[in-house]
Amino acid sequence: MKENRIYNFSAGPAMLPEEVLEQIAAEMLDKDGSGMSVMEMSHRSKVFQNIIDTAEADLRKLLNIPDNYKVLFLQGGATLAFSMIPMNFATNGKVDIINTGVWTKKVIKDTKLYADVNVVASGEENGFKAIPSLKGLKFREDADYVYICDNNTIYGSKYKEYPNTGNVPLIADMSSCFLSEPVDVSKFGLIYAGAQKNVGPAGVTIVIIREDLLQRAPRVPLPAYLDYRLHAENGSMYNTPPTFAIYVCGLVFKWLLKTGGLEYRKQVNEEKAKILYDYLDKSRLFIPYVEKESRSLMNVTFRTPNEELDALFLEGAKKYRFTNLKGHRSTGGLRASIYNAMPIDGVKALVKYMQEFENEHKDAWVK
Amino acid sequence: MKENRIYNFSAGPAMLPEEVLEQIAAEMLDKDGSGMSVMEMSHRSKVFQNIIDTAEADLRKLLNIPDNYKVLFLQGGATLAFSMIPMNFATNGKVDIINTGVWTKKVIKDTKLYADVNVVASGEENGFKAIPSLKGLKFREDADYVYICDNNTIYGSKYKEYPNTGNVPLIADMSSCFLSEPVDVSKFGLIYAGAQKNVGPAGVTIVIIREDLLQRAPRVPLPAYLDYRLHAENGSMYNTPPTFAIYVCGLVFKWLLKTGGLEYRKQVNEEKAKILYDYLDKSRLFIPYVEKESRSLMNVTFRTPNEELDALFLEGAKKYRFTNLKGHRSTGGLRASIYNAMPIDGVKALVKYMQEFENEHKDAWVK
Repeated sequence: MKENRIYNFSAGPAMLPEEVLEQIAAEMLDKDGSGMSVMEMSHRSKVFQNIIDTAEADLRKLLNIPDNYKVLFLQGGATLAFSMIPMNFATNGKVDIINTGVWTKKVIKDTKLYADVNVVASGEENGFKAIPSLKGLKFREDADYVYICDNNTIYGSKYKEYPNTGNVPLIADMSSCFLSEPVDVSKFGLIYAGAQKNVGPAGVTIVIIREDLLQRAPRVPLPAYLDYRLHAENGSMYNTPPTFAIYVCGLVFKWLLKTGGLEYRKQVNEEKAKILYDYLDKSRLFIPYVEKESRSLMNVTFRTPNEELDALFLEGAKKYRFTNLKGHRSTGGLRASIYNAMPIDGVKALVKYMQEFENEHKDAWVK
Repeated sequence: MKENRIYNFSAGPAMLPEEVLEQIAAEMLDKDGSGMSVMEMSHRSKVFQNIIDTAEADLRKLLNIPDNYKVLFLQGGATLAFSMIPMNFATNGKVDIINTGVWTKKVIKDTKLYADVNVVASGEENGFKAIPSLKGLKFREDADYVYICDNNTIYGSKYKEYPNTGNVPLIADMSSCFLSEPVDVSKFGLIYAGAQKNVGPAGVTIVIIREDLLQRAPRVPLPAYLDYRLHAENGSMYNTPPTFAIYVCGLVFKWLLKTGGLEYRKQVNEEKAKILYDYLDKSRLFIPYVEKESRSLMNVTFRTPNEELDALFLEGAKKYRFTNLKGHRSTGGLRASIYNAMPIDGVKALVKYMQEFENEHKDAWVK
């Protein structure tokens, strides 16, 4: 990492690979001899069409996306997807959802405007410290789809296996674990991810949809932007797409392919997370939040025995220029987000500081 | 302009000021000593809050926006606004629209899902070669609002004065003329603009709303992202906003303030447009599309007597590296978009080429 750069543990927007940023800077006034920045290109130009086509092709390669899935680059983030999904696909008016925290609760609220919602399981009583057990879960056979949030950024929980929903399509918000490891896309009806965690800048949502879902009748009459079919028919170009954000995503896809793809990424991410979780499990000061079997590789949540020490920890982190280690507003505590672009050295440096802090505060040891 | 840069006459995304691009490149790995790119910043961080607050303050200064208006930075482009506006503000179910082309036709279609639409006037019979006359126009007194598209990018037409709608709020899509000249914001209930023409990268929509509109009951039950009230209450941060795009807009606002504000910009834009229109009016080969009293300063549309010559003109433009001079798919012909960032030298160079082309094709003279 360059000297002036810092370890940024933000939950998103988050770190991007340094070499991607360097390429963006180098191409800012003239992309590939076009005489213009990607920001200045007509989305109808050949040079931009090549950028979006290459991004899609590379994403298909990375995730091994089957041919009967469309890939879209849209706007509005996960928050717009929360309502677009039931509007577009809850034809029968029945949606089953597993509640794993703040984000699925927002989905439940928006989905209820269009469909009967059955909360099949919930981690709420347990403070969302674990993904609910999938054993014996019953989904309605006439449900339009089953909805999950794969990685829960706020709590740091993650599905380790996916529910078997039979013939009912499974739809997953993968915003905060997208491209952190291989995924069997064929198990899903729809996968989507806001780019601003593992993939690129805020302002583009990647949507992977199985084509049969696009054949369904919408639940409500749809205006143009809210109709996934229109975006799919027009290759994400029904209207002007977020061209620059798509370009950055494309560079990150290339970086992932070049550095060993998602199998390698998974290995590195497991290694990084293990360093932190191993330390947390043996620490006598820091308390990990999530139960072992549900732990995210991307968002590692923990706390000290009290809020004053949490605050001291954040204060002390400044001398190493570690940023964004504060937990989410809704949970408090501490959180280290260690997405793809966080180097392993960043994790090691953080643990070193945690050890140092633990030694300084032996009086507060709880374990 | 730097040697490798070109004159790009794209209708959008379009040219940005070179010094803005240079600043973006310089700050790509480390914005103001933060140790990170703007793309990597948490939207909840102080450093980003400062970026969005400064952008809003500078925009308020540029347009002299009254205090009873909210400024929002949203996603989905004009296309999402087409339906969000009636969903949010057509409480009474009645909307009056002036039809000036493709974009208002899309608005009419989306608005009809939520309200009775009265097309008060239309330029369609005239091929949208002019903004319809405002004389004697009658708006419904119980209409929720009157909707116009101020500058029509495809045809190159622009309102020179605005309709007097009495107590009925006027709502305007200003995507392709935003910040090209001063506007009396107090005449409008709502103004919005996709950034990708005059302001920044595609992927952010700037919305300026008078507060009383936000007090209205929505026309339909609204999911979170589609509710302007929620965005306004949360300072555009209900969900992750398109942070990098907002940062670029902010740099363009600074550039506009520094170079003389919108009065000066209007003067330069009039000068640039005059060079082209004066030439078109005296040319014996090129035929301007729009009637004199409706001509846009931003999008100058014209054609030669036939499609073969249009194609030859585009072919010949390549030797000067002029790009995107082709007219919109729906109209054909030729179009030069000369937004704020197009230097006057670019317009002069284009006219020089047009003269050269005209001399070469004397046999086709029509005037």
